[in-house]
Amino acid sequence: MRNLKVTVQYDGTDLVGWQRQAGGTSVQALLEDALAPFDGRRVVVHGAGRTDAGVHALAQVATFGLTNSIAPAALVRALNGVLVPQVRIIAAEEADPGFHARFSATGKIYEYRIVNAPLLSPFLHRYAWHVPQPLDLEAMRAAAARLVGTHDFASFQGSGSFVVSTERTVRALAWEDGGGYDLPLVMRIEGDGFLRHMVRNIAGTLVEVGAGRWTAAEMEGILAARDRRRSGRTAPPHGLFLARVLY
Amino acid sequence: MRNLKVTVQYDGTDLVGWQRQAGGTSVQALLEDALAPFDGRRVVVHGAGRTDAGVHALAQVATFGLTNSIAPAALVRALNGVLVPQVRIIAAEEADPGFHARFSATGKIYEYRIVNAPLLSPFLHRYAWHVPQPLDLEAMRAAAARLVGTHDFASFQGSGSFVVSTERTVRALAWEDGGGYDLPLVMRIEGDGFLRHMVRNIAGTLVEVGAGRWTAAEMEGILAARDRRRSGRTAPPHGLFLARVLY
Repeated sequence: MRNLKVTVQYDGTDLVGWQRQAGGTSVQALLEDALAPFDGRRVVVHGAGRTDAGVHALAQVATFGLTNSIAPAALVRALNGVLVPQVRIIAAEEADPGFHARFSATGKIYEYRIVNAPLLSPFLHRYAWHVPQPLDLEAMRAAAARLVGTHDFASFQGSGSFVVSTERTVRALAWEDGGGYDLPLVMRIEGDGFLRHMVRNIAGTLVEVGAGRWTAAEMEGILAARDRRRSGRTAPPHGLFLARVLY
Repeated sequence: MRNLKVTVQYDGTDLVGWQRQAGGTSVQALLEDALAPFDGRRVVVHGAGRTDAGVHALAQVATFGLTNSIAPAALVRALNGVLVPQVRIIAAEEADPGFHARFSATGKIYEYRIVNAPLLSPFLHRYAWHVPQPLDLEAMRAAAARLVGTHDFASFQGSGSFVVSTERTVRALAWEDGGGYDLPLVMRIEGDGFLRHMVRNIAGTLVEVGAGRWTAAEMEGILAARDRRRSGRTAPPHGLFLARVLY
């Protein structure tokens, strides 16, 4: 059995997220259904991370076993020929037998996009959160710096999830100024792993800082509280992009 | 009665085009319905050009009479508050009484976007035509140059339309290299006016040149024939953007 690694890009607007579930179209189900004819059996696809409904991916990574001997480049063409245009396989390669999209990952990079202008372009309304009030980018950068490092991020964890440890390491967290109406403001965050809704809760919290409701210094208190009620609102899913998985 | 001029941006993917019609949502109907409560009567909105179903606008211009004394900036906010996010009013101003979005226009600029790469990004599939085979951009530019000037463009006119004259002046026609997968190739065309489907038929014809099926020199013969069957296929609507109306 071969072990194949694919890189997948998707517009999550009309999808229920990565994971297969009843009542909607998931990326995992689309890929598994597209792969089944190649193998004459159900192929199980493992993704690097479970993106939520409405979240996009610039480069999600997935692995799966395949008995068929099709060349990776031909597999890319064949899959893209049957997949909906919102989902594209942008690369495929043979992986070592022990390589696993999720368990082999050493980190991930997410981007969160915000249009900080009075108007939201019709061409960005599927791909960015509209925050019309002026944001203080320097304050947001100062607050972001307080979150970099190894911390207990329980205050930024969405409810309804159970994990053994809520400690994570944020290796980098930067805001890039997009320039307003047409080019969004981008938060780029790299970490060894992320709790449920952690990136969206960090984005929502830093927007509160940018709007002047909190200061950068308050980040320590929010982290120390280990209480979701202390951090800001969950930024909406359509601004979030899984940008890269690190191995 | 005031005469107001608005600039409108829209993602035409899920719209039936500019003009009000049965069986679908048009930009004109959305604007007229949004304006009616301001005036207590039906407001008729005149657009600079009738974009087809699926065609987008970066800056469509429209004019209408209004008895209400609302300030233009407040009107922009109010209209955007009720319009769907695919349609945005990006500017509004008082216009001279004789100014008319369509009849006062001295020209228009359209852009046609093509992704010339093996894959089409999921984030561009609503906004660009996917042409996977390699295109010879220099040949397309040479052919484009043959179309600049005042010509009878009957060979590039879609069927089902009647106009007094099929002579039009193309003032400029350029191709800008986007760089592949993420950034589309852009055809920018400026003219005093355009026949039905003329921009899409020119784009489709120049793609035939780029694919090596025709040469630049054949443009003269196609123009001289005054026969739609001589030019190339109609490029799909989703690559077309009304970029600017000139006054």
